[in-house]
Amino acid sequence: MVRYEGSCFTAGEDRLAVEEPLEIRLNDAPMAITMRTPGHDTELAAGFCLTEGVVREPDEIESITPCGEAKFGNVILVRLGDTAMTRRARQIESARRETYLSSSCGLCGKQTLDRIAQDVPPIAGKFTVTRATLDGLPGVMRKAQATFEQTGGLHAAGLFTPEGVLRVVREDVGRHNAVDKVIGWAVLLGALPIDPGVLLVSGRASFEIMQKAAMAGVAMVCAVSAPSSLAVDFAKKMDMTLVGFLRPGRMNIYHDPGRIKT
Amino acid sequence: MVRYEGSCFTAGEDRLAVEEPLEIRLNDAPMAITMRTPGHDTELAAGFCLTEGVVREPDEIESITPCGEAKFGNVILVRLGDTAMTRRARQIESARRETYLSSSCGLCGKQTLDRIAQDVPPIAGKFTVTRATLDGLPGVMRKAQATFEQTGGLHAAGLFTPEGVLRVVREDVGRHNAVDKVIGWAVLLGALPIDPGVLLVSGRASFEIMQKAAMAGVAMVCAVSAPSSLAVDFAKKMDMTLVGFLRPGRMNIYHDPGRIKT
Repeated sequence: MVRYEGSCFTAGEDRLAVEEPLEIRLNDAPMAITMRTPGHDTELAAGFCLTEGVVREPDEIESITPCGEAKFGNVILVRLGDTAMTRRARQIESARRETYLSSSCGLCGKQTLDRIAQDVPPIAGKFTVTRATLDGLPGVMRKAQATFEQTGGLHAAGLFTPEGVLRVVREDVGRHNAVDKVIGWAVLLGALPIDPGVLLVSGRASFEIMQKAAMAGVAMVCAVSAPSSLAVDFAKKMDMTLVGFLRPGRMNIYHDPGRIKT
Repeated sequence: MVRYEGSCFTAGEDRLAVEEPLEIRLNDAPMAITMRTPGHDTELAAGFCLTEGVVREPDEIESITPCGEAKFGNVILVRLGDTAMTRRARQIESARRETYLSSSCGLCGKQTLDRIAQDVPPIAGKFTVTRATLDGLPGVMRKAQATFEQTGGLHAAGLFTPEGVLRVVREDVGRHNAVDKVIGWAVLLGALPIDPGVLLVSGRASFEIMQKAAMAGVAMVCAVSAPSSLAVDFAKKMDMTLVGFLRPGRMNIYHDPGRIKT
């Protein structure tokens, strides 16, 4: 690697965020391949199963193990009980049916929201957080992100208590993977729903981030950057608190400021 | 929306990056649903067909039209000729076969690269760019991004000539979509391969961004943020030039500095 800085240039090494494929298999059938940063793969698989709506209770997961025969540790085997596998079969069947039935209608954001919202368990989230606490969260997460300082290439997601105590932080080249790892951490502890809980993401808040948070029962999502329109619509529909542009001394509250005390 | 800034707070409107689902259909069969920012949907569909390896030549696309029956403009119909549809059928079949054959082997980054690299046309890229030109690209792209200034929530991709002239810039809530829109712009003009050409992305350079660029024949990719490890590996394998952290007065060249003149 060659680095130019002003009129100086240096040849050297640069630490890169590692990106590798991970195949997730459910009872030996392939479920998905995701490009992720290796590490916390068990959590990633557990979180993915939950946020995709296959698993609803931690004890529906019988085991999660790296594939022993795989040469590179990039295959992970999830064993699920009958309840979860029945749900998975129903998902596949309904995706197939929808595909053929949808041939003359359009999709709008609202339809997407309605369809997703049916699958999301109700969110309680009866807690409040002070503005001062929220203000401090990005700094706390940054300090915990040892890797970030080295590569600059990783997205982070952190889970906090309403008092601002960091419970877990995970990083990944993929924004969604970082969130799935955090949620999977709670799944593996049997600590669902994640309530009360505040999820902080280092980048933007998209619809999918909100949907993943909702699946885990997280009532408050904060993003260092902007939310998308559908993320805000979803927050309103599910009555989640959504904060964007959480930066020193400022924040935008897009929905439900009731959970935030000044 | 409520905005807090220091001790002031204001209630007001905020412009959000719009995120809506788009369903892409190939000869009436569903190909994919992507969450995207509406606008330039025709380019997005054309670019996606190319970067997914279904279409190789612009004239394989017979037509791309928004679905007239769809209520929200969120379904787009791509009509392809027989060559492309045969390729598509082969892809589906080989994905199915691979899924079942892969049950005892692992995936590593190298395997992924090898598999992808087989499908990528050779890249010529016999051109050079000066450091001063590269230095100016992010500023030029920012100025062209009217929307960015308003929402802060959009990723951008821009295509430049080796002399630093901006040919097209596109934005999207999804990083990959912004790149697909830029590439689709060239597909619809019949201007493939995109060579000589420099692709600039506003965020990180992941494996998928590199792969999309390669499918369109783009030999140089610059990112404002960090590349991933697999992006660098792919650049080396395909002999593409990859620049990261392209910021005023500095840049890191991860592969092939030969295309960059000081």
